[in-house]
Parts: sequence; structure tokens; C-alpha cells
Amino acid sequence: MATIRDVARHAGVAISTVSLALNGTGPVSAETRARILEAVAAVNYSPNLMAQNLKRGQSKLIGLVLGDLGNPFFGRLLRTVDRKISQADHMLIVADTDSDPDREIRTLNQLKRQRVAGIIMAPLRNDKEFVAYLNAMDIPVVLIDQDVEGARLDFVSSDHQLAAGMLTDYLLRLGHGRRIAYLGGIPGFWTAQQRLIGFRAAMARAGLDVDPELEVVADYSAEKAYDQVSRLMSRPVRPTAFLAANNFMAIGALQAVNDLGFRCPEDVSIAGIDGVPWGSVIKPRITTAEQPIEELAGLAASWMLEHVQGEVMAGAANRRHIALPRLVIGQSCAPPAASHPR
Amino acid sequence: MATIRDVARHAGVAISTVSLALNGTGPVSAETRARILEAVAAVNYSPNLMAQNLKRGQSKLIGLVLGDLGNPFFGRLLRTVDRKISQADHMLIVADTDSDPDREIRTLNQLKRQRVAGIIMAPLRNDKEFVAYLNAMDIPVVLIDQDVEGARLDFVSSDHQLAAGMLTDYLLRLGHGRRIAYLGGIPGFWTAQQRLIGFRAAMARAGLDVDPELEVVADYSAEKAYDQVSRLMSRPVRPTAFLAANNFMAIGALQAVNDLGFRCPEDVSIAGIDGVPWGSVIKPRITTAEQPIEELAGLAASWMLEHVQGEVMAGAANRRHIALPRLVIGQSCAPPAASHPR
Repeated sequence: MATIRDVARHAGVAISTVSLALNGTGPVSAETRARILEAVAAVNYSPNLMAQNLKRGQSKLIGLVLGDLGNPFFGRLLRTVDRKISQADHMLIVADTDSDPDREIRTLNQLKRQRVAGIIMAPLRNDKEFVAYLNAMDIPVVLIDQDVEGARLDFVSSDHQLAAGMLTDYLLRLGHGRRIAYLGGIPGFWTAQQRLIGFRAAMARAGLDVDPELEVVADYSAEKAYDQVSRLMSRPVRPTAFLAANNFMAIGALQAVNDLGFRCPEDVSIAGIDGVPWGSVIKPRITTAEQPIEELAGLAASWMLEHVQGEVMAGAANRRHIALPRLVIGQSCAPPAASHPR
Repeated sequence: MATIRDVARHAGVAISTVSLALNGTGPVSAETRARILEAVAAVNYSPNLMAQNLKRGQSKLIGLVLGDLGNPFFGRLLRTVDRKISQADHMLIVADTDSDPDREIRTLNQLKRQRVAGIIMAPLRNDKEFVAYLNAMDIPVVLIDQDVEGARLDFVSSDHQLAAGMLTDYLLRLGHGRRIAYLGGIPGFWTAQQRLIGFRAAMARAGLDVDPELEVVADYSAEKAYDQVSRLMSRPVRPTAFLAANNFMAIGALQAVNDLGFRCPEDVSIAGIDGVPWGSVIKPRITTAEQPIEELAGLAASWMLEHVQGEVMAGAANRRHIALPRLVIGQSCAPPAASHPR
């Protein structure tokens, strides 16, 4: 690989002159600059970004830490962030923490050692120690999707309470009542907590208390949702509808309902937060509360670039943006069957 | 952020002693080493990887260049590579080239400037200039999924000819003949070319010449497949089956068939290469030739780590691994309807 030495030799100038010319840190005549640029092309020199970064104390790299890249929600988020970041000539170090909080901390430490310029993350943890850890970070961090309450960081998300609330309201309007079963996300995750609050609040507004037997945890997993739904559908008094706190669990619920020989929506309704890819060919099309992923990811990337490019003043208040989810009515919900014992 | 200076001060030794101890480049007594490690913990020193990398002339970073992270095939591939790479304490710089060959070259140059230790990529181009470019790379490159013929690089893929061939054979055995329509990938892409060869060869083995009207291009895109299928199904003599060269196009075909009011598989059969996520709740379940993604991604990551860790001897022959796709029979294919004019 060509070095600055090769450029200097080819141009017939001192190494320091090449450095001045390339970094714009000192006066070089137009004629010399032209000769140097010609030499750069001739020897195929690509400046050592690592060396430049070392001088600046940071790199052009930005970390993106997500919990589950297998989930199309995060896949689409990654794609949008990558497009925006690379347009600004930065690159993304991507890490999938496999929804494992220990791996999350290891990953963050690894990124700090790489001297990334900043980190965009959908955090898993939401405890005091983690707040302290984040607030002690000396590089910009933008949180996306999941909040860490008490962290003094920019935060971009959609309204998770509203998402669960609007689906619950919709099921209630169709005539489902106390027998709506709720499939909850990973306990401890901020989004899981917010979505559960939204479900409970909507039930409370309707004057219904939640049946604790029907408020179950399925860890944002299709397999666990499948098991929970199979169990609940085998009880003498079955749920009339399932509200799944994410896309995977809605799919798992539909699968279980199909496999048990029930019909959706005739026998049981299913609704879920987050769109599902190819939702239009899943029969029936599932009613969802979709998040505006491109809006969220684009804004998180913009804010990060503002930090990295020095456009955010030191001591500026951190920013919050909460986007509205969108109710997308499919064919997976219907009034409860008349045959259901009330 | 703590520096090596802080460690030295805390331990009461010279900076050079800390450097010797941490880098293992010189003799340091056990007692001193212990004091230094204690100081590292006390001042919370994290060694500047950028500086270390600069010395070694490479980083712990590995580039992963993919054409479309929105495709779950690449999402799963990324996840598997990330898991393996991060276990070895490396990190991934991920770039999505949006299936744009110009962006691919820009991305590779960017990665070179970042002094990544190696690059794993699913290349878009397959031309002479690109072969020359790759062969001139002075860092290890492992190709995955798509080959660049003539490149002296490790290559991991599944047998794309076989994938298309086994689906064609299956449709032929069901009784479909010359009216199988083929939805082809992006022209110029190696996989698109291989899959088309597989289709044509299977037809030739059956003594059938391919109807040029039914061999169409849909660019690996669901939308384009939708348009092509809508057009072909509106012809007086319709195809009896569609063979889609990837998952997106199979989904687009199914959508078009549904929207036009045809039934799959009663009126028309659909088969496609690559599994579709949640394929089990797509009605009908699509018959596919699945690639062993975890096997491919895991091997590519292993080979890259061998390169990076110096376990591949200079001048060693490049390796090739071609994995077998697996035929997964769904409910989307049936014998052609008797009502079809022959």
C-alpha cells in the first residue's frame, strides 16, 4: 500500500510538504499542490484514516447497537441509518447484542475502545447503573426505540403506549371485552413496559379490569407466543382476541391458532404492534399499529451527525422526538363469535 | 478518558514500563505487572485501540458489504457473521450498497481507508475490471453468495444452478411444461445468471425449449415481479406456473395472483428460491429451495478470522465451498388445472 513517503518521492517534495498540502494545515503553492495531487493518483495513495483519526482523537466510525437484527424492524432501521450516515462519509460499526444486557455492555466498551465518534443504540437495560454508565460516556449517544429514564441523551421513539392503546380500543369497539389476552414483551424492556401500560390504560378507560390469567409474557418471541396461545386456547373459557406486543408474537399467535384448527378472525381475533414484512400475503392480513421506522431512523442519524460534526453546543439540552404510530386495519379482527360463552 | 500517563502515575512507574507490560513487548517483573494491572482498573483505563492498530497497520475491524440488508437472507447472514466475529473480539463495519455497483466500489475504498483487517462481501459486479481491483487488494477478502469469476479469493455459496434446477424439475414432475414462466434476477448478477442456467438446463433435460416470452426479468424485486406476473396472467394463453429466482419475487407473484382473483395453486403454481420469513403463515406456504444461510455465513466468518489471525499461509490456494440447497415443499404448487388449454 502506498505511503505518504511514496507520494513525496514521486512529487519530488518533502514529506512535510505533502502533509501540509493534504491536510490544508500550511501554505503550499498551487503548482506544488497540483504536483502532489498528481502523485497521489499516480502511486494510488489513500490517506491513512487511522492515523488521521488518531490525531483527532476520534474516528469517522459510528456504532449502531441493536438487540435483534433478525427482527425486520431493526433491519429496516439499520438500512435507513446506514444510508444517511454513509452519505456523510461516515461508516457504521454494527453490533447485534442478541437481546443480552451483558453483551450490550461488552459491546459498548468495545466501541469506546475503537474510539467511535458516537453511538446510536436501542438499549436493553433501563436501570440506575446503566443510567450512570451512559451519563459518564464522553462521546455522543442517541437512543432509539427504547428509552433509559434519567439518561441525559437524545431520544427518538414512537409512542408505544398509544400503539397498544389504539389496538386495544379497536378490539373493544369490535365487542371484545375482558377476554382480550395480552402477549407481553421481555420484562424490564422499556418498550414492553410502555406497551403494557397502554393496554391496561385502555382497558381501565373502558371500565374493565384485566384478567391476570390473560396477561402473559412471551418475550417478543414467536415461539413463546405460540406456546402461550396454544395453552390459552386449550382452556375451557378461551380468549376472544389476542393483542401481541410485537410482530413476531402476532405471527406466532396466528400460527398457533391455525395449527389448533381455529379460524382467525371467525373464532379468535389477532392484532399486533409493528408491521410484518409481506403482511399483505399473510392470510388474514394482521391488524397492526405500525411505527414510522424511516422517520425514527432518519432523525436519529441526523442528530448523531449533528453531534459528530460539532453542530450541537456543549451543554445543550437533550432532544426528544416521539412519533405517532399508525393503525393499519387488516382482516385479522372481527366481533367475537356469538357461540362464545359470555 | 484515562490515558496511559494516568496508569503510570497511579502505579508509580514509567510510561514505558506500562507500555512494555500491556503490550508484552519487554520484561517486566510479576510484581510490577500486577501493580500496573491494578492501576489500569483503578483509573479505568481502556487502551486506545486506534493507536495500537496504527502500530500494527490494521484494525480489529472487518468490513461486511452486502447488497440489500432489507432482504431477510442478508439480515440473517449479517447476524451469523456478527456473532462469530464478535466472539473473536473483532467488530463489523457493515455497509449496504443498495445493489448499486458504484456505491460498492466507493464502499470498498472507504473500508480500505479505514484499514479494516479484511472484508467479507456479496459482490454485485462480475467484470474484468472488478476482478483486477479485487486481486490487487492487499487485505484478505472472502466472497459470499455471489462469485467473481477469476478473482483469487475464498468463496462460499450455495449451488444456485441446483436450486433453480430442483424447483424446475419439481414443477415438471407435477405436469407443468413449456408454460412455466421464469422470473429472473438482476442481469449481470452472478446468482441471477447461475439460477437462469439451472432453469434452462432442467427444461433442456426435459426436452422442452424455453418460451422466450415467459423468461422475464424482475430484478429480484417484489414490485417488478408483481408487474410481470400481472402482465403475463392477462395474456390469452397464461403461464401455468411461476418460478421466481428469489423470495421477494415469489411474494410479489403471489400477491399479483391473489389480487387478480386467481387461486394458488389451483389456477397457477408458484415456487421460489430462498426461504421467506414466516413462510409458515403465508397462505399457501410457498415451495422453495432454501439456502443454508448459517452454514454459509459461519464458514465465511471462520475463513476471514483465519486470515486475520495469520493462520492462512501466504500463497495458499483460495478455498471454495458450495453448499447444497434444500427443497422445501409447500402448498403453492399443484398439477396444472385441467381447464388450461394445452
